[in-house]
Amino acid sequence: MAIGRQRQYARPMADRPTIRDVADLAGVHPGTVSRALDPRREGRISAPTAERIRSAARRLGYAPDPIARSLRVRRSAVIGVVVPDLANPVFPPIVQGIEDTLAEAGYTALIANTGNDLGRERDRIAALQARRCEGYIVASATLDGTTIGRLTSAAEPVVLVNREIDNPTLPSVSSDDRAGIWAAMQHLSDLGHRVIAHLTGPPNLSVVRARAEAFRSSADRLGLDPDLLIIRHCPTLGVADAKDAALAVLAEIPATTAILAGNDLMALGCYAAAQLAGRPCPSSISIVGYNDMPFVEWWRPALSTVAIPQYDIGREAARLLLEQIDNSGDRPAKQILMPTSLTVRASTGLAR
Amino acid sequence: MAIGRQRQYARPMADRPTIRDVADLAGVHPGTVSRALDPRREGRISAPTAERIRSAARRLGYAPDPIARSLRVRRSAVIGVVVPDLANPVFPPIVQGIEDTLAEAGYTALIANTGNDLGRERDRIAALQARRCEGYIVASATLDGTTIGRLTSAAEPVVLVNREIDNPTLPSVSSDDRAGIWAAMQHLSDLGHRVIAHLTGPPNLSVVRARAEAFRSSADRLGLDPDLLIIRHCPTLGVADAKDAALAVLAEIPATTAILAGNDLMALGCYAAAQLAGRPCPSSISIVGYNDMPFVEWWRPALSTVAIPQYDIGREAARLLLEQIDNSGDRPAKQILMPTSLTVRASTGLAR
Repeated sequence: MAIGRQRQYARPMADRPTIRDVADLAGVHPGTVSRALDPRREGRISAPTAERIRSAARRLGYAPDPIARSLRVRRSAVIGVVVPDLANPVFPPIVQGIEDTLAEAGYTALIANTGNDLGRERDRIAALQARRCEGYIVASATLDGTTIGRLTSAAEPVVLVNREIDNPTLPSVSSDDRAGIWAAMQHLSDLGHRVIAHLTGPPNLSVVRARAEAFRSSADRLGLDPDLLIIRHCPTLGVADAKDAALAVLAEIPATTAILAGNDLMALGCYAAAQLAGRPCPSSISIVGYNDMPFVEWWRPALSTVAIPQYDIGREAARLLLEQIDNSGDRPAKQILMPTSLTVRASTGLAR
Repeated sequence: MAIGRQRQYARPMADRPTIRDVADLAGVHPGTVSRALDPRREGRISAPTAERIRSAARRLGYAPDPIARSLRVRRSAVIGVVVPDLANPVFPPIVQGIEDTLAEAGYTALIANTGNDLGRERDRIAALQARRCEGYIVASATLDGTTIGRLTSAAEPVVLVNREIDNPTLPSVSSDDRAGIWAAMQHLSDLGHRVIAHLTGPPNLSVVRARAEAFRSSADRLGLDPDLLIIRHCPTLGVADAKDAALAVLAEIPATTAILAGNDLMALGCYAAAQLAGRPCPSSISIVGYNDMPFVEWWRPALSTVAIPQYDIGREAARLLLEQIDNSGDRPAKQILMPTSLTVRASTGLAR
């Protein structure tokens, strides 16, 4: 009984085993335990010893205390991942790529969702920064100047996803929007479409600007009539706004035979509008999306869309961040463009 | 210049404003700043003062240092949220409900995604626990005994989502599976279906067991022939496994005219199988999903499914957790059942 109580008092929190408990069970020095359980240092210990220590830690349910460690060595092994909208199905696969790559290097991703709200985004990034993450991956699309400034001046490495344009001093990973839009426009042109509308989000988003510019230059290259070029910016990249905008376009310019949507959710809004306007897709109107997010092949009609390598974008972003961490924060402002490809399904057809 | 450098040295991290900077700018004592910026204590300060302090904090870009604070007062204002699979569209709305409710009370949600992997789930929960979250919401579906034990013995409050069956000692929020399945079965029976298959996930998941039991008892109540009751457990709740299982069922028991899927993703697998088997939905086979996750109304045919109040489940789970935190960890083992309702769309029709 006395021993049991002693043991209790020796622990900082009830029932939380200490590094010393693990060291005792494995028959090694506590410092060896600490090295063995740190994925970036375990290489310095023989494999059988490391395995004995890990097995002892598992048996005791020991987890290193990262808060105490982060104060001691200024390391948390946690990466903050900021996403604008988990409800947009394109983000989970990107997050998955980030998580898998970080996990391989011994890092845990903690995800903050901003819901596309600028104030909330600022708060979340500040909260993560105050929590001393070792680095940040920001897939957020609405960074304002303050937040960008904070991130640029931060001591910790940062990687942006889909944000290359706004801040060339931060490393970023994005999809090759120009090539993607060009492929979609070529496809529509091959089908005989000459009056094509581009529905997209607010112009303060870099992906929106990049795709709109690519739309304009592709139309030019294809010799489409510039007077019949339609670009509509919606307040959000969501379904409802796209539906309203598509209804308006179909009413104002009935000669429109194709819509290139800013993303797949917007394409869904175009489906709804086409139905309401009595313009069946694809026989009367062709619709192309962007992202190739999960399950769009199940829509009716199955969506023709520009595929971006979602999972690989996540992996690449994490790789770039780990590279910076290894170089102790040296920030090579790499702008990585990931390849895109057009996936043709059933929502595009010959122009009537 | 000298002032600039002094200022630099006075700060623990480059460019990070301190609580004293905020106090100076607002003309108050640092302790008042600390109270004003803590949502659970700001009530003790006059509204104009609190607003002056918040505005000063915003101007300086000041964020409280939660790591130092959590060591001081054992509080982190962070809640760990564990989800099994962000790629399943049913989870983002639940997370959104959790986040919104926590944010109102001044808490930040950090999300850990386990990818339905038991080992990874154990690691993530341990990592969050070591990081001294103030509480946990675990929407994970594959908890093993070890993890449950850890959570039960933890000092911090825990709320389970969709896990009421396995551990009645922890508070939980789930949907009323029995009522949901009963509504779906009544609907199918009304349409004349007498041979109905239930395709679901592995029986070690509580939602799977609850729904399978409800399926059996509903069939019994409706007087369906027990010899024609088909329940198939798939290795996962995903699309591909459901497709294989549905193909097998349609081949082995061609008299099957309806499938009740364990969730909407499995219903999608049934769509694919029905197509391959030449059994058009709904004219030859009716398919019902579960969850009413986002975008299923866009599928063709639009999915008939049992709707669970996803966002409200998240809100309720967060509310239950905050209640425990306010009661300093007192754990009333409340099991909250949220109402379900059947949404009839186009994937169900008269039995042929």
